[in-house]
Amino acid sequence: MNVVEREVRANGRAGGTGAMHRPHRSLEGRLIERLLSHAGNPAIEFVLWTGERVRSPGVEVAHEMHVADRATLMKLITDTQLGFGDGYSEGRITVAGDLVAFLETTYRAVPKSRGAGKIFRRLVTRRAQPANTLAGSRENIHRHYDIGNEFYSLWLGSTMAYTCAYYPSADATLDEAQVAKMHHVCRKLRLRSGESVVEAGCGWGALGLHMARHYGVKVRAFNISHEQIVYARERAQAEGLTSMVEYIEDDYRNISGSYDAFVSVGMLEHVGRENYPELGRVANQCLPRHGRGLIHSIGRNRPSPLHPWIQRRIFPGAYPPTLAEMMQLFEPWDISVLDVENLRLHYAQTLRHWLALYEAASERVKNLFDEKFVRMWRLYLAGSIAGFTTGTLQLFQVVFAPRDNNDIPLTRAYLYQD
Amino acid sequence: MNVVEREVRANGRAGGTGAMHRPHRSLEGRLIERLLSHAGNPAIEFVLWTGERVRSPGVEVAHEMHVADRATLMKLITDTQLGFGDGYSEGRITVAGDLVAFLETTYRAVPKSRGAGKIFRRLVTRRAQPANTLAGSRENIHRHYDIGNEFYSLWLGSTMAYTCAYYPSADATLDEAQVAKMHHVCRKLRLRSGESVVEAGCGWGALGLHMARHYGVKVRAFNISHEQIVYARERAQAEGLTSMVEYIEDDYRNISGSYDAFVSVGMLEHVGRENYPELGRVANQCLPRHGRGLIHSIGRNRPSPLHPWIQRRIFPGAYPPTLAEMMQLFEPWDISVLDVENLRLHYAQTLRHWLALYEAASERVKNLFDEKFVRMWRLYLAGSIAGFTTGTLQLFQVVFAPRDNNDIPLTRAYLYQD
Repeated sequence: MNVVEREVRANGRAGGTGAMHRPHRSLEGRLIERLLSHAGNPAIEFVLWTGERVRSPGVEVAHEMHVADRATLMKLITDTQLGFGDGYSEGRITVAGDLVAFLETTYRAVPKSRGAGKIFRRLVTRRAQPANTLAGSRENIHRHYDIGNEFYSLWLGSTMAYTCAYYPSADATLDEAQVAKMHHVCRKLRLRSGESVVEAGCGWGALGLHMARHYGVKVRAFNISHEQIVYARERAQAEGLTSMVEYIEDDYRNISGSYDAFVSVGMLEHVGRENYPELGRVANQCLPRHGRGLIHSIGRNRPSPLHPWIQRRIFPGAYPPTLAEMMQLFEPWDISVLDVENLRLHYAQTLRHWLALYEAASERVKNLFDEKFVRMWRLYLAGSIAGFTTGTLQLFQVVFAPRDNNDIPLTRAYLYQD
Repeated sequence: MNVVEREVRANGRAGGTGAMHRPHRSLEGRLIERLLSHAGNPAIEFVLWTGERVRSPGVEVAHEMHVADRATLMKLITDTQLGFGDGYSEGRITVAGDLVAFLETTYRAVPKSRGAGKIFRRLVTRRAQPANTLAGSRENIHRHYDIGNEFYSLWLGSTMAYTCAYYPSADATLDEAQVAKMHHVCRKLRLRSGESVVEAGCGWGALGLHMARHYGVKVRAFNISHEQIVYARERAQAEGLTSMVEYIEDDYRNISGSYDAFVSVGMLEHVGRENYPELGRVANQCLPRHGRGLIHSIGRNRPSPLHPWIQRRIFPGAYPPTLAEMMQLFEPWDISVLDVENLRLHYAQTLRHWLALYEAASERVKNLFDEKFVRMWRLYLAGSIAGFTTGTLQLFQVVFAPRDNNDIPLTRAYLYQD
């Protein structure tokens, strides 16, 4: 046992040396203390490669975090969010016990006045991401959604819906909740047989097929992910719905025509704030006076960039808007917002179901990619759960209509009647 | 019959002279044509004191508007909104047939790209209004809400609630809908017996008494209208609820303490945009982690000042915010918006009920004030109906909670179960 370790143990464990007699700390230990203090003193203990243990003074430890070497620690200290994500992915940072609970502890500790996204931001060097131009969006979307339908089919459930589900009751299964979400969206849009719908960003096509099958509407669904469009077309073929649902490999900015309803579930996150008025223009142009629209998106309570590690490794070009920012879709076109529902806890539950399926398939994911990939996506899913349970992320479902559409239901009771 | 009149009749009625042969117009006629064109060519015919009739070419007339003299017309042309309101109040402008339908026709004609509030704005000389400082708010509120409890009791129904009601079905009476609104608000706040509520802007006190009686909560209700506070206290006394509901004659900015719920129905319109973060600070400071809040306010689809005549003659210092502007209450404090419901058509129906009671009591109103006052308030009520039916006005009911309050219902179904 070296001197540092002995002193640390005396400090951290025996409890005999308090604030009155502060022991000597290694340089690493002092840097970690500053990091913890800046992060709101979460109930976390660092365990270093030397055996040294560091936590905030007076904090009862709930979680242990192991750091395997000095380079990993230095990256964590100089660029916390990216350093944690990369260190975890590489297995150089490990967390004892439940990863989601660990992340929730860190998110909750962040002083509200600062916001989780802002810690150590000054130290983060921004890497260039393709802007969300027509070509840039295509590249950004390709990097996430085209990594393999087989991979996604391992953990998204049978609907292949990769967006927040809707749990009418807490014990609903993932598939039940995804189907319930699609019904919830269709009922909010008050789809009637024979109507037409345009969908901006259709994923693997589940919603379009659902609308055609259960509501008798014709759907034109746009997506710039090639893999998803191929998959969606095969599904429409297999289900005999090609006359009802058309999947179009093109950008939302190229949507034209008039439709009874406009819907976009989980695309706005990828649109980029600078393009909100343009997306609003498209929705406004699509909808006649009796038209209805719905936009469903991850959001924030206040403006903050996406977690830099998620931005860099998982979702290039993505940004979760605040409600005020979302209004930039509607205000330029005098569109009325009729209803906003925050489904934050539904997304936490959806992600718990995804993570359970993902863990069960982790050997197959490893065979498709490698161990680093397995850990990277585990962290992404677990971190997203923690974001929704701690409220650093929100999920807004917004129903809208042209200003002068008075054919709107008096109350929302119809949504909750069978 | 003079030359102008003969020519106008030939133009306006006989239909023999079209665009090919445009007759001579009086100066007044040409100015009105420009005014109508700028206003989107509504289906309105001006009938002047000379007998001259003027409408937009090719438009089928739905409504006649009579102007009694040149001074009234000139005011209408140079400062349309104020000129119309004052001219109507003085009886120098009259409208044949249904006033609400006439106003709806004018609101609907306004090109959406410009917005109803912006017509001829350049010509409007802004008059100084007291800013919404502590003293300025007191003056602004005094000028509207302290003009007499007797007057308001003639047409607000038995609840004396002077805010948008909630119609569970279209045939509900005004009193039923006001009671239903209070239940709707209480259920959205999920009030439980024994809890505490702070109310910012309590009107004549109906909601506070309702919450105490039906939900068993203790209420502290703030208002700076002296007349309203006196009335509310008498009501609490008469109903034996003084131990449950305390009415405090003070500004929302002086609210302190911690409460399970924060509620404000129909006050935000008078707060002034510059004070939204301050109102948000008050709400945020009041609410512990398990707290809930609700703000109910008239709003807009896009930023626009209140109609200048309403601002000047009816509601000094008032401003209906957009949803994005309302978010300035919440964003600085990391508060989560859980639910937004737009009750626009409910306010139109509430106002129809108010206007019917008002018309039935118009002789008594005339005895309390004078004929000009009767016409002024008729125009205010009728114009508000038209604002809500045409969508130039919205009604937003926003439910919110501290970011980390996870004790929130999974769905909104409970609101619609008995």
